[in-house]
Amino acid sequence: MAVKHFVLIRFKEGTSAEEIIKKMEEMALEIDKVKSFEWGQDLESEEMLRQGFTHAFSLTFESKEEFVAFSQHPTHLAFAEILLSAVEKAIVFDFPVVQVKPLINA
Amino acid sequence: MAVKHFVLIRFKEGTSAEEIIKKMEEMALEIDKVKSFEWGQDLESEEMLRQGFTHAFSLTFESKEEFVAFSQHPTHLAFAEILLSAVEKAIVFDFPVVQVKPLINA
Repeated sequence: MAVKHFVLIRFKEGTSAEEIIKKMEEMALEIDKVKSFEWGQDLESEEMLRQGFTHAFSLTFESKEEFVAFSQHPTHLAFAEILLSAVEKAIVFDFPVVQVKPLINA
Repeated sequence: MAVKHFVLIRFKEGTSAEEIIKKMEEMALEIDKVKSFEWGQDLESEEMLRQGFTHAFSLTFESKEEFVAFSQHPTHLAFAEILLSAVEKAIVFDFPVVQVKPLINA
C-alpha cells in the first residue's frame, strides 16, 4: 500500500521559498525511494480554512517500509533540518493511500 | 494545470468517520469533475507535527475552472455542510500541482 508524506508550510518572513523548494526537489530526485513528488502554492480559495499556510508538499512511497527508510535517509534528515529552520509553522501528515477514484488523464 | 483540494480533519468524538467517508466517496464518484479521490488515516509517525489531525482527503481536478465548478456543485455544498458539522477541526488547502517526480508504478 502506497504511503504519502504530506507537509503544509508557512515560511518565515524573509525566507526564500524558491531556494528551499529547489533543495527539496533535489532531495526528492536524489532519493530513489521517493516515487512521486509534487508541490504547490495555495490558490487562496479558502482563506479562513487554510489557516495561513502557503505551500503544500506531497511525497509518495511504495510502502510503509520505503517511507520509513526515506525518513531515516541522511539526505532527508539534512534537508529536514534546513526546512524546519525556515518555517514559521508546519503540519506533517503521513498516511497509507486509499485510492477511491483513479486519475484518468495522468 | 491540475488542482488539488486537500483537507485535513479531526473528527468530533462520537462521530462515525466511516459514515462520513462513505458519503465523501459517493460524492467524489458522482461528480464528474473529480478526476481523482484518495484518502487516508494517519500513520502516527509524526505525533507532534500532525497536530491531532487523523484523516486526510485529496481530490484532483484537471484545471482551476473544474475545481471552481466542483466547489459550487450542489452535491459538494450539501456534503460540505455534513462534513463541517462532524469535525472538531479542519484545514483546507487548494493548490495547482507542480509535478516534479512522476509516479512510475501508478
